[in-house]
Amino acid sequence: MSITFPKGFLANGIHCGVKKEGLDLGLLVSVCVAKASGMFTTNQVKSPSVVITAERLKSGMLRGIIANSGCANACTGEQGFLDAESILNRLGIILKEEPKLLGIASTGVIGKRLPVDKILESLPLLVDGLSKESGILFERAIMTTDRVVKEVQTSFFYNGTTIRIGACAKGSGMIHPNLATLLSFITTDIEIDKTLLKIALKSVVDVSLNAITIDKDMSTNDSVIIMANGKAGNVEIKNVSEKGFILFRDNLKEIMIELARKIAKDGEGAEKLIEVEVIGTETEEQAIRMARAVVGSNLFKSAIWGKEINWGRIMSALGANSDPFDPQRVSIFFGDVKLVENGIEIDFDTSRVSKILEGKEVPIKIIVGEGKARGKAWGCDLTPDYVFINGSYLS
Amino acid sequence: MSITFPKGFLANGIHCGVKKEGLDLGLLVSVCVAKASGMFTTNQVKSPSVVITAERLKSGMLRGIIANSGCANACTGEQGFLDAESILNRLGIILKEEPKLLGIASTGVIGKRLPVDKILESLPLLVDGLSKESGILFERAIMTTDRVVKEVQTSFFYNGTTIRIGACAKGSGMIHPNLATLLSFITTDIEIDKTLLKIALKSVVDVSLNAITIDKDMSTNDSVIIMANGKAGNVEIKNVSEKGFILFRDNLKEIMIELARKIAKDGEGAEKLIEVEVIGTETEEQAIRMARAVVGSNLFKSAIWGKEINWGRIMSALGANSDPFDPQRVSIFFGDVKLVENGIEIDFDTSRVSKILEGKEVPIKIIVGEGKARGKAWGCDLTPDYVFINGSYLS
Repeated sequence: MSITFPKGFLANGIHCGVKKEGLDLGLLVSVCVAKASGMFTTNQVKSPSVVITAERLKSGMLRGIIANSGCANACTGEQGFLDAESILNRLGIILKEEPKLLGIASTGVIGKRLPVDKILESLPLLVDGLSKESGILFERAIMTTDRVVKEVQTSFFYNGTTIRIGACAKGSGMIHPNLATLLSFITTDIEIDKTLLKIALKSVVDVSLNAITIDKDMSTNDSVIIMANGKAGNVEIKNVSEKGFILFRDNLKEIMIELARKIAKDGEGAEKLIEVEVIGTETEEQAIRMARAVVGSNLFKSAIWGKEINWGRIMSALGANSDPFDPQRVSIFFGDVKLVENGIEIDFDTSRVSKILEGKEVPIKIIVGEGKARGKAWGCDLTPDYVFINGSYLS
Repeated sequence: MSITFPKGFLANGIHCGVKKEGLDLGLLVSVCVAKASGMFTTNQVKSPSVVITAERLKSGMLRGIIANSGCANACTGEQGFLDAESILNRLGIILKEEPKLLGIASTGVIGKRLPVDKILESLPLLVDGLSKESGILFERAIMTTDRVVKEVQTSFFYNGTTIRIGACAKGSGMIHPNLATLLSFITTDIEIDKTLLKIALKSVVDVSLNAITIDKDMSTNDSVIIMANGKAGNVEIKNVSEKGFILFRDNLKEIMIELARKIAKDGEGAEKLIEVEVIGTETEEQAIRMARAVVGSNLFKSAIWGKEINWGRIMSALGANSDPFDPQRVSIFFGDVKLVENGIEIDFDTSRVSKILEGKEVPIKIIVGEGKARGKAWGCDLTPDYVFINGSYLS
């Protein structure tokens, strides 16, 4: 229950009937109004849940978020907005909070309306059960085809104060984030200026959630939301050069990369986590783009599932991406075994590489030039199960 | 044997040992030097076979092409160039032709050298067997995981002369062409200016081979080459406004779209051909890009394999593509059944849609606005077999 690990956060999750079975409605609240920031899908087709929450977060303040799985509330037209607003209005009454300080996040089937009546009826029960311990129920209520709960947490000391950060996410399919990933929630009890909170979130998401891909399909509902309620009691952090800001950002970065890896590892049908590091570019952004191009290739991912040493597919994927490089200067490593130098295969120990491909995590390193930057991306193998899962998603 | 359907073309295909078994080396020649043009992969990692052939085609003239399957001759460094050139030099001696009028095309595993000795030894046999009837052997010799030969042909009358066009292709995996597709060869006996031949090829490829996708993986070896040897005996076509040019281009377009559909239908592991038409854009290019974004979505393709009516994935894929449109104005049809109007689901006959999804060809129509342009793209369903095939490609 990482999401309620920081002071002053409560949560709950219940089954209300959006899905046939399992938890499908969650609520996360701070005991007081929190500084908040969010990043959302850049898909042109956005869920009304995303549009409404993004709009409300412009104030930089949020008290709580209601989240449901089983229905994305996307492609639902004007009715989708009315549905989300009626839920938030009723929640405001029950929580005795202004609705504009409440957000909503949805995930699941596109094109179907939320079952508003079922949700409205369940709100009192949902609010009654709010507690620290029910954090885990919230984390489970946002899951769709996820096989495991994905949560991370950390704490650090700053000027004699312990500051806590927790985060959770649902991922699995339709994962190729651009500015955010499916649903991810971050809580922290740090006292921080809201502009700084936004800066920290953006810098961290670019190297974590935006560096994963499962199927190159960007969702209509991607949302990552951070809430900072100040309950740690530190003196407010107001400047990017403060040590407290740097500590906060670095801790946040560490756990969000861990969360990103967990999402990639639990990709739909996945058997293996693939980590690709690209080294020697001009910028980190280039390195991440190139790494994500490799880890997003269906052919490369199928080869990893089949435990085949098909490094040619890495070269092909790098070349199909638009960042320039000289193929004749590329080196490729599987684990610590070098397979390719100056763009061509060298003698290597195939039994050692086969052993690496047997593992649950396959690390690939690619040196593409002499530049000083490097970057990582994460994904998973493409398996027959991915197709089975997505060929019967509505059933 | 469409490839030898036009007058004055001979071909052959043999097994020489690039692959363990099956035909793997083909030769296509014109009885005289032909006008020629080619389009090649825009992947930054190009096979030496592609680089050499593209360079030689700058003259606009070609006598013949040798093609092999089983080895892409890609990521083979300087040696890859020497290998290809030694094959072309020896072929020139046997054919009594200048090597600079000969091209080479390769497809198969990336990162391995061509077995040059085996190929050189086999050249006399390959040349000896050249005939009209052996066109089919050439068409089979370029296949990798293709399940069927893909060939098309047509003829038309112009000013009392019969003009013939034939074409063949290998496709299957690593198919997301940009300016060309894997290996495709076109022959024609028309007498035509070489600049016009190039114009016709480009205009046709953009709406045929460049409008398909099987797995979003662009190859290092994509090549499409057209040869026109003038043996039909017509007066040379020299102007784009001539009726003969328009007839030639339209006939070429018709068969190349047919060929593109055959490639999509025979995609690796594919059970169904998916045709997506986008209507109502400003330009045809936009419509094709949008259609290809839909037909390239792993999630959408998995749903089609599972015969699920998941139109939300069409909306999501359109939105993730960068061409602007208003989601609230979208209509979606499966076959002739309208499922979506103004961006939201309407009442429709699910049994009729299920019947369409049972078919071997699934036609999808999407109206995205009021623009006058439209365009089609083709692809195939994503199946567990795609993963099985590509997880054991080297075995």
